[in-house]
Amino acid sequence: MHAEMVERAARAGKHVFCEKPLALDPGAGRRAVRAASAAGVCLQVGFQRRFDADWVAAKRRLDAGEVGDVLLLHVSHRNRCPPHGPDRTGRLGSLFVDMSIHDMDCARWLIGEVRAANAFATAARDDARDVETAAIVLEFEGGALGIIDNTRVAGYGFDCRAEVMGRRSTLRIGTHQRPVDLELLTQDGVLVPTPADHIERHRGAYVTEIRHFVECVRTGSAPAAGGDDALAALELSLAAERSYREKRPVELCHALR
Amino acid sequence: MHAEMVERAARAGKHVFCEKPLALDPGAGRRAVRAASAAGVCLQVGFQRRFDADWVAAKRRLDAGEVGDVLLLHVSHRNRCPPHGPDRTGRLGSLFVDMSIHDMDCARWLIGEVRAANAFATAARDDARDVETAAIVLEFEGGALGIIDNTRVAGYGFDCRAEVMGRRSTLRIGTHQRPVDLELLTQDGVLVPTPADHIERHRGAYVTEIRHFVECVRTGSAPAAGGDDALAALELSLAAERSYREKRPVELCHALR
Amino acid sequence: MHAEMVERAARAGKHVFCEKPLALDPGAGRRAVRAASAAGVCLQVGFQRRFDADWVAAKRRLDAGEVGDVLLLHVSHRNRCPPHGPDRTGRLGSLFVDMSIHDMDCARWLIGEVRAANAFATAARDDARDVETAAIVLEFEGGALGIIDNTRVAGYGFDCRAEVMGRRSTLRIGTHQRPVDLELLTQDGVLVPTPADHIERHRGAYVTEIRHFVECVRTGSAPAAGGDDALAALELSLAAERSYREKRPVELCHALR
Amino acid sequence: MHAEMVERAARAGKHVFCEKPLALDPGAGRRAVRAASAAGVCLQVGFQRRFDADWVAAKRRLDAGEVGDVLLLHVSHRNRCPPHGPDRTGRLGSLFVDMSIHDMDCARWLIGEVRAANAFATAARDDARDVETAAIVLEFEGGALGIIDNTRVAGYGFDCRAEVMGRRSTLRIGTHQRPVDLELLTQDGVLVPTPADHIERHRGAYVTEIRHFVECVRTGSAPAAGGDDALAALELSLAAERSYREKRPVELCHALR
Repeated sequence: MHAEMVERAARAGKHVFCEKPLALDPGAGRRAVRAASAAGVCLQVGFQRRFDADWVAAKRRLDAGEVGDVLLLHVSHRNRCPPHGPDRTGRLGSLFVDMSIHDMDCARWLIGEVRAANAFATAARDDARDVETAAIVLEFEGGALGIIDNTRVAGYGFDCRAEVMGRRSTLRIGTHQRPVDLELLTQDGVLVPTPADHIERHRGAYVTEIRHFVECVRTGSAPAAGGDDALAALELSLAAERSYREKRPVELCHALR
Repeated sequence: MHAEMVERAARAGKHVFCEKPLALDPGAGRRAVRAASAAGVCLQVGFQRRFDADWVAAKRRLDAGEVGDVLLLHVSHRNRCPPHGPDRTGRLGSLFVDMSIHDMDCARWLIGEVRAANAFATAARDDARDVETAAIVLEFEGGALGIIDNTRVAGYGFDCRAEVMGRRSTLRIGTHQRPVDLELLTQDGVLVPTPADHIERHRGAYVTEIRHFVECVRTGSAPAAGGDDALAALELSLAAERSYREKRPVELCHALR
Repeated sequence: MHAEMVERAARAGKHVFCEKPLALDPGAGRRAVRAASAAGVCLQVGFQRRFDADWVAAKRRLDAGEVGDVLLLHVSHRNRCPPHGPDRTGRLGSLFVDMSIHDMDCARWLIGEVRAANAFATAARDDARDVETAAIVLEFEGGALGIIDNTRVAGYGFDCRAEVMGRRSTLRIGTHQRPVDLELLTQDGVLVPTPADHIERHRGAYVTEIRHFVECVRTGSAPAAGGDDALAALELSLAAERSYREKRPVELCHALR
Repeated sequence: MHAEMVERAARAGKHVFCEKPLALDPGAGRRAVRAASAAGVCLQVGFQRRFDADWVAAKRRLDAGEVGDVLLLHVSHRNRCPPHGPDRTGRLGSLFVDMSIHDMDCARWLIGEVRAANAFATAARDDARDVETAAIVLEFEGGALGIIDNTRVAGYGFDCRAEVMGRRSTLRIGTHQRPVDLELLTQDGVLVPTPADHIERHRGAYVTEIRHFVECVRTGSAPAAGGDDALAALELSLAAERSYREKRPVELCHALR
């Protein structure tokens, strides 16, 4: 319902903050973006990592050239269980559209446009249509490779980390995430807490993205995660899904966008 | 000027949030506490660690008995330079009153009352009266030992961490503090960022303590870091200072308080 | 020359410890294995991770079922520069045969047989035939996915780590490798040393594998990394290389081995 | 019996490697050192940290001036239980002589001579004479402070780490000791293994110190941890013990040694 709601809100002259994904198909997404554009309202999508202090610091070092030529991006993004519960109707979109889309956005934001997507996945035990764990390889236009791994059933809980490996140096983002910095040392070893879920992990980023939205509305400037970013990430997610279904590389066609 | 300001504010019927230390001498501190009490206003002091998520989680585990009998508390609390600049007039109090007072409060809050304080210190190179680095050993009434180390000239920057070692297990607080969770891997090794100062380190705690103050004012409940806590920590700091000056253990006299 | 040397040594009745890869093509490898078998000598290959304390401990926990169903294996294996220098003649084999072969062996050892290999890579800047960085996705017969990333030009130095993600819990191997446990804290952050190369990283494993070889020779027992393991890893490496060249998944045919 | 055995061995013309402590009283220790000297044999004592890669790397950086003026040394050295079992007869020496002596040697080795020792301790629950946990503050001749904390009953197991804080930077030794680099991630957090005992923690150092002894015997050179070091560490341990018993600082008299 996201795209439809965005369209109606835009027509009513409302600025819109929309959670990801903007849409489940590109057509609906494009209509929503056009509606916002035609109405002159601000449209921001909920790619909160663009506002997370860790990721922002990485982006800054990357842009400053500290890493050198980028060779590889690796993003791990895992849930303990589907955050919205089981999706028997398919209305939430596949793992690619529901989860990987965050990583697709980060791939574009940090490294650049993608030339081809290759996806591999395993289905859930009780529903062969439902992808549960996926490994995606992206080929960037600049020559780098990208690896994304996603799962909905990581026994140990939520995780979200990334690595940008370059010819000069390498960045690791979110390697030591912990909700509190408190270690318990017992006879069995040191026990270090891990984040329970994405809310706890990205708490600051959720606040910052909303502040950014308010600021964009106030000043009329374009949001850092806008409608076009939402469309591009959706296309990447759908390309990965098609690659998985058809067991072949899927090339991205940037000219058509 | 803290104590005097608290006294005047209390007489004017204002609730007071006062930064530590409440006073430089116990007499003035006691007058301020009495004034707040007489006026029926809320008096909270800025011991922000009592509101820091890491320390609060440790306190909870400690109170739940997870550590067993406490054997040792160790607090490291260090600045790169005096946060208020050099104190040529002595108006800011010694390192014991200006810095250690935070650790004295934590000692009481986490472990309990102190029986005796023993302090050792080195003076600054350019001002023999000014204590620059100190090692304090506390003997708790419950039998545990406490070690506090403070300095104003830690070259690597601000640090604030603690360990509670028990007969069953041990807690480590703040071991991995970093402003962002971003590592840079270079030929020279992994570079992990560290907090620049106490503001960055305790940002969340500063917000939480003010929220707590507002809540106390609203509901009339007693603040978690009140005037009596401020006095007790001050007495401990002054006992440490005396121990250092007179090169002998200084016993705390709780009956007199 | 490995396979040829193994063959001649076996015929001379010598027990053989052979560094990986056993051969650059399966035919030569099979002849070497057959020669060792016919001569009744011990043939061990240098897959030292099978003797590394970290990896062995992981294998033990995995076999004990602590991880639950395995969802994903991820191995990162990177060099700062080609360990044998540039290979203008192709005699050392591609990155897949020279480097990935270690990871292929670990994949089989830890998780099980592989059904299909999919490889993506980038060529070196000065020699389009020479693969420099690769991302490989393995599909295991048991249903799990495997990701291997390799490079010969990781600016920050040698790295070798792995993760086995399961439905119950997850294992991380070699996350904190450091030659000495010594941190330097400076104004710029904490500097943690990293291993310079594979010799430093796996020093203990190299000793243990040779001890194992001696023990096998002495007792006549089969080595933990034998000729068949060498052949299987080689086939996986060649399948990955073919997948990369032909831009398609390559299925492994275990019946033919 | 150490000192007596050393004396007899020396008289028999044998080179001697003696575990710490060399003696329980300085007189016996001095006789042993003199006997070795008179016989012209090599006498090395088991201060294995002087041969541990982590500590040696720290010593090197310290000597290179990387830390700047040393402000503080902190050594934590803890056992889960007395390594030799309960000492009902007192023949093993107090915690100061049995455990702290290692830390006293490190203090001298890393920082320099000590001017005064101040010790605080708690007795075991079942034997008031037996010190169980101690906090020792050393005042170095060069102006730095030293903190040593020891215990025989750390519930979580063996630990041995140190920090050298300087005006420029700070070194941390042994912060991340783990027998294997393998993390288990579960719903409860990340579980990191810790060393079980000093054998596991210092395995490499025990080998290196014996090699060093053999080398000294062979070449006739003086061992890096000789009889004088053993005596100096014993005097420091006894000074700490006296400080604890007499509740006062105990000055070290280097002229008399």
